[in-house]
Order: sequence, then C-alpha cells, then structure tokens
Amino acid sequence: MQLEQLIAKIGLLDEAAMAAAAARQDNLTKPLGSLGRLEEVSIRLAGIAGTCPPPVPARKAVIVFAGDHGVVAQGVSAYPKDVTPEMVYNFLHGGAAINVLSRQAGARVVVVDAGVDADLAPGEGLIIAKVAPGTADMTAGPAMSREQALASLAAGARVAGDEIARGLDLLACGEMGIGNSTPAAAITAVLTGCSPREVTGHGTGIDEAGLERKVAVIERAIAANRPDPAQGLEVLAKVGGFEIGGIAGAMLAAAAARVPIMVDGFIATAGALVAVSLAPAAREYMFAGHCSQEPGHKVALKHLGLVPLLDLNMRLGEGTGATLAMYLVEASARILREMATFAEAGVSEKTEEPQA
Amino acid sequence: MQLEQLIAKIGLLDEAAMAAAAARQDNLTKPLGSLGRLEEVSIRLAGIAGTCPPPVPARKAVIVFAGDHGVVAQGVSAYPKDVTPEMVYNFLHGGAAINVLSRQAGARVVVVDAGVDADLAPGEGLIIAKVAPGTADMTAGPAMSREQALASLAAGARVAGDEIARGLDLLACGEMGIGNSTPAAAITAVLTGCSPREVTGHGTGIDEAGLERKVAVIERAIAANRPDPAQGLEVLAKVGGFEIGGIAGAMLAAAAARVPIMVDGFIATAGALVAVSLAPAAREYMFAGHCSQEPGHKVALKHLGLVPLLDLNMRLGEGTGATLAMYLVEASARILREMATFAEAGVSEKTEEPQA
Repeated sequence: MQLEQLIAKIGLLDEAAMAAAAARQDNLTKPLGSLGRLEEVSIRLAGIAGTCPPPVPARKAVIVFAGDHGVVAQGVSAYPKDVTPEMVYNFLHGGAAINVLSRQAGARVVVVDAGVDADLAPGEGLIIAKVAPGTADMTAGPAMSREQALASLAAGARVAGDEIARGLDLLACGEMGIGNSTPAAAITAVLTGCSPREVTGHGTGIDEAGLERKVAVIERAIAANRPDPAQGLEVLAKVGGFEIGGIAGAMLAAAAARVPIMVDGFIATAGALVAVSLAPAAREYMFAGHCSQEPGHKVALKHLGLVPLLDLNMRLGEGTGATLAMYLVEASARILREMATFAEAGVSEKTEEPQA
Repeated sequence: MQLEQLIAKIGLLDEAAMAAAAARQDNLTKPLGSLGRLEEVSIRLAGIAGTCPPPVPARKAVIVFAGDHGVVAQGVSAYPKDVTPEMVYNFLHGGAAINVLSRQAGARVVVVDAGVDADLAPGEGLIIAKVAPGTADMTAGPAMSREQALASLAAGARVAGDEIARGLDLLACGEMGIGNSTPAAAITAVLTGCSPREVTGHGTGIDEAGLERKVAVIERAIAANRPDPAQGLEVLAKVGGFEIGGIAGAMLAAAAARVPIMVDGFIATAGALVAVSLAPAAREYMFAGHCSQEPGHKVALKHLGLVPLLDLNMRLGEGTGATLAMYLVEASARILREMATFAEAGVSEKTEEPQA
C-alpha cells in the first residue's frame, strides 16, 4: 500500500464506544474514578476497537527494527558498531531482555533488518528488509535519500501488515542500532522545536565529554541539513535512521488497521513523532509504555500528548518498556469486561451525604 | 506462633546472594543499569530467597482482610457501612477489581472476615477470623483492646501461614472496610510524626466539608487516645482497625518465612507501618506496588523507605495496586534468570572510549 493510502485509512476513534466505556466504568463496583489511568486506557481501547467492552488483547507482537548509523563515525556511542548485528543474533537466540519480557507477555517477536551494516543470514524470526547497509553520516549531508526514507516506512508498514494479517490485538515496536539515540535526538529536536542540548542524553553510557561531542554532532547535522520541521518525511531522511523509519511505518499500518500501539522509549518515540507528523490521527492509537531516562523522551512524549504508564528508570530500548506495559493495557480491558456493576453485585452506591 | 517468636524469626537479607545478583545484572546483554528499577527488585529478590538467581515467583496469593469501623458514626465515608459485607460477597463471586486483577496475575484470592459488622456465611474462599463485629468509635476511646489488637495480628499471621504452607512465592495484602482510610490516616500520622491534615484525603470520595470533618475526627481520636508512636501494638489498638492488624500480622508471617511482600495502597501501607514498627527487619521483604492518590500514602511509603513501582492515579485498595505490580516483580526475576550474558551471547562489551 502506498504511504498516502495508508495515512488516508487512519480513522478517528469511535466516540460512542468511548462514551459507553466511560459510563460502564462509572457503574462498576468501585469508587468513581478509583482505577485512574486504567480507566482512561480502557476508554481509549473502546474507541480504537469501536465497541464496548473492547476485546482483551490476546494476540500481541513486538517488532524489533535494527539499523546502523553513519554518524557513529563521529564517536557518539559507548559501544562498537558490531553490537548491532551481535544483538540481532541475541534476539534470534532468545537471550535479550526483549525476548524475556515478550515471553512473559505472551507476545511474539519479529526482528527486522531495516539497515544493518552486516550481511545477516535470513532465518526463523528475522526479516531482511534492508534499505541500505547503514545510513550516511548526517553531519556531512542527509542520512538517507527521500526514496530510502519512503522505503524504510514501506518496510515497516509491510512487516506490520503481515503481523496484522496473522492476527494482532496489540503491537509494540522496538529497535536496536548502535548510535541511534543520536538520530532520535536530532528528530526530536527538529519536530518538537527544542534545542539538541535539551533532548540529548548519555544513550548507552557515554561520559560527559562524549555527551558534549554528541550535542555538537547533532547541532552540526541539523545545520548541515536544515530539515523542515513541518515535513516528517524530510526530517526522517535528513537526520533519521532506517529502524526509526521502520517503526514509523509499522505504527501507521497499525493505526490504519485500528490496532493499538505501545510506544517504547526514546528511539521508538522518535519513530512515533515521525508517524504523527505524517498522520496526526495516528496519535490516538498510541499508548506510551514507559518513560525512559533519556532526557529527550519526556520532551517527545509531551509533544505527542502521551503520558507514560511506567517510570522505572529504564533506558534499554528493544521495545522492553512497551512490552512490559502491555500487561497494564490488558488489565484495563479485563477490568472493563469482567468487573461486576453495582446492580449486578447488589452493592450499595455512594450516598449524597457522608454516613453517620 | 506467638508474636514475639514470629518477629524473632525475621532474618536479614542474604548479602552474598544480593552481590551475586548485582554482578550478574552487570554481565547481562544490556547497557549497565539500563533496566533500572527491575534490576533493583531482582537484587532484593535474591537477598530474600538467599540464592541467585532467585526463583521466578509462580505461586501468588492475595489475602483481602475485611473489617468495619466504629468511627464511621462520625460521618467520615461517602459509602454506607453495608458496603463492607456487600463487597465481601462481590469478592467471593469474582466480580470485584481484585478478582479480575488476580485472575490476570495468576494469584489466588483469600478473603478474611477480620471484623465485619455482619454475620457472614463461611464459604469457599472466605475465612472467618472475626475479632469483633467492627471496632469501637476511636473518638470516644480506643478502637480496640490490646488483646483484640494481638488477636487481629495473630489472625493475619495464621491465614498467611496457611497460605505459605500451601506454597507461596509472592504475597499481596489487600483490604475492604468502609471508613478505613480514617484509621489508616490516624496510624500514619502517629507512626510518621506528621499531622492528620497532611495524611488525610478524600478516601472513596467525600467532599471538602467531609474532608474537614474527617481531619477533625482523626485529631480528636489521637487526642483522646494519645498513642505512643514508639509502640506499634498500642497504635494499632488505639486508632487502628481489625483488617489493618490482619495485614500487619500477615506481613510479619511472610517476612518470617522469607516470602516477598507486595504492599498495596494507603490502608495496606498503614498495616506495613504497624508491622515495621513491631519488626523493623520486615521492611526488607516489602515492595511497594503502587502510589495511591491518597496524600498520606506518599508519606507512609517515604517513612518506610519504599519507592512505588506503579503510579497510575489509583485509589481503590483491595490489593489492586499490589497485585498489578506482581507482574513487574516477576519480570525482574525472569530478567535475572533468563537473559544471556555478553559472553554467552558473543556480544561485544562497552569500550573505554566512544567509537569512531
């Protein structure tokens, strides 16, 4: 499907289903509003599903997009670039954090080579959708061409579309790519209007001197490319990454199919920023799984109007925060579906005046 | 078992197991410390279990203690007292929030009548351990006698002991009792040294005038009884509740058996304050499930030195926040047990200098 068609397919939430969910929450055997954020989530799930109560999300998937970055030549990461393919193999062997958390969540894991700078052997659980072996160094020009940006979005949309066709109630998008907190910070700075310094952090663990260099690298990349903040595709092309484009494309496909989306940490949220820049309505399908320790993540979530469900000082990526929070989204759907109402349970309701 | 024996049995955490867990976390295939609070939890689980990696908590239980309160005669709740037994039946029929969340968590639910002011029919899932049909009005004298306070602790310890004997890896304690945010606030004020106003909230939903009355009621109860803040048993007797005593006793029994404890919201945390007042070492076995909207909950958790895992604007009680957070504790154990190390996965480690 073409990008324009995908975007045109993203519909509004079902207001009637949301009103029914809100009314049902108020009749369940608990003080009004006492389940807080779980109630909010359940109402939005009803709006996405177009029915109340919404189904309990049983079929879950995590798509982990991997890509490399030319900008690592500027010394922005604490880990060598080889770690990107090494971690892809770790995902395939089930030993990474995302594997552990996906098993617990009952979510299938799909790994996508969106642009790793190594020849990965295709195999069970790995999809080769390589746009190019790593982006170009964005301090010297655009990270990718407009065509490559479109190809990364299309790859993400295609993989997500295949997962949706297999049956999918809840999607998390994760990523792996040494150096990718640098393009994520560049995208976040451009699309939110913040300075690079405000949205740049220590990533996997660079020191203070490294952080200063990283901020300068992002400033140079933005100055060299001058991406137009109103053009999400251009921002992705000039200062993005293939895995970030993959995430944005997968999110657009999920929103078009009315599948709720769990947004992960800083890098995945940069993908969400690109997706929402291209299709503002996609935002309504997104739940923020957690708040990362990367300073730019709070900025990006605020820009999207999303409040994270978890705040556990995590900063790992891979989709770990999004996958961990799937449990809470599932809980919210179960509450709305399974709890008894006051009338059903024969429980007295709140009185007008305190009881004496 | 006598209270003194139970308290004497509560041991220290195993420092060697904790050191092994911390070292293992640093060797798993992720940036150092990048799983944040999950890493902390896993280390404490190892200390509780006395082995690394600790077992993944498979056998879970929620014990919901119910009790009534003489102080409701002072007009401190938005709901009629009949709701306490009505909600007990709702628990037994599986329609309450705690039932839904326990089913999702794979936790069994045990309901205990610790002091409901109604004759409840014993039945499947309900244990009658009624100390008395509700406490006395604490504005006119002690809520209960010293013997009744001891009986409520013993009832909680006995029920928890039975659950431990059935096999238990993780315990949550919840409660139901119309009016019980009033004794919880009184206990919290006395044991933390804060004023009643600082720790008193809207409970199930009283208005501003009701809140003023509630603060005044708590001030009168403390003035009338003058509980000694250094004597947890006396505080429980003078301004407590039977369900709060039950929770404290269950927590002491769990700590004595080295079973990790999920602390729930404001009322359950008042039970934790009583337990820790009686046995400071019990604190090490506790994880704070969530932060309630009740203002006194933050104060109580800070006093205990516990940082909540979830913060979802919930204020329902029943054990809901504790049970929801069981998933995160389980995740932390799975991470420590199932993730591959750098050596196992053949992944390159962090370099001294950023890569160029």
